[in-house]
Amino acid sequence: MIIHIIVIGKTKDARLRDLENDFLNRLQKYTRAGLSVIRESKSPDRPGALREEGTRILQTIQAGDFTVALDSRGEELTSRGLSGFLQKHLLTGTKRMVFVIGGPEGLDTSVTGRADLVLSFSRFTLTHEMIRVLLLEQLYRAWTMMRGEKYHR
Amino acid sequence: MIIHIIVIGKTKDARLRDLENDFLNRLQKYTRAGLSVIRESKSPDRPGALREEGTRILQTIQAGDFTVALDSRGEELTSRGLSGFLQKHLLTGTKRMVFVIGGPEGLDTSVTGRADLVLSFSRFTLTHEMIRVLLLEQLYRAWTMMRGEKYHR
Repeated sequence: MIIHIIVIGKTKDARLRDLENDFLNRLQKYTRAGLSVIRESKSPDRPGALREEGTRILQTIQAGDFTVALDSRGEELTSRGLSGFLQKHLLTGTKRMVFVIGGPEGLDTSVTGRADLVLSFSRFTLTHEMIRVLLLEQLYRAWTMMRGEKYHR
Repeated sequence: MIIHIIVIGKTKDARLRDLENDFLNRLQKYTRAGLSVIRESKSPDRPGALREEGTRILQTIQAGDFTVALDSRGEELTSRGLSGFLQKHLLTGTKRMVFVIGGPEGLDTSVTGRADLVLSFSRFTLTHEMIRVLLLEQLYRAWTMMRGEKYHR
């Protein structure tokens, strides 16, 4: 199963960018995984900007993709729960799972509406750059659980 | 109000240590805030190690402290909710609020039992070093909300 992560704008904080690459590399030892960066809208009109980014995001999602949108108001899972969820998709032959992380202003409803699952990392509002690290870390953790391997700190 | 954070072991990851210091510095512009590091137990016996760390943690907590223990199974708050909660404590004259983050194996029940609030950042299991950054970021965010200031990214 291919894991594909869509984010808005490059990670500006060098420390978070480095952590992100670290966990992406670790995850790639277990499965095909990649990340694509959608250009952040420069529109000063907030709903318009979200809509514009939403359109770009939806263009990168393919018909058969299982799409997970990240939103603080979404469904919550434990690490064990996420691992079981991924395992189920591996077994049932999902080809590609796409995770979408919005920009500083979040995601347009066109994206959360298209999503097969809206997943929440925290009820707290976290920065979109931090969520990238948290998601990659959690995916890596999920695979270590599936394979019964030690989590390398 | 003094914000005091108790953690187990120094932050080993340099990137997370740097982020932690960043947010601690930002928070210190708003309120007195500090962090104390409790030595990690070297005991190979897991419950024994947690108990040992728990005893050390409880020694640093004072009678009048409002104590918040972080645990993934705890109560969840939104960022707005945390801000309101801190504001209430500022108004009612709480002198010191202590946040306790466990080590890799979590916290002993003696600590969660002593806590006035058990707070969850996520249903996901996160690394204890990441939680330090998330907590400091969230406290900084809470103060910007209270003061109606812009969140500096």
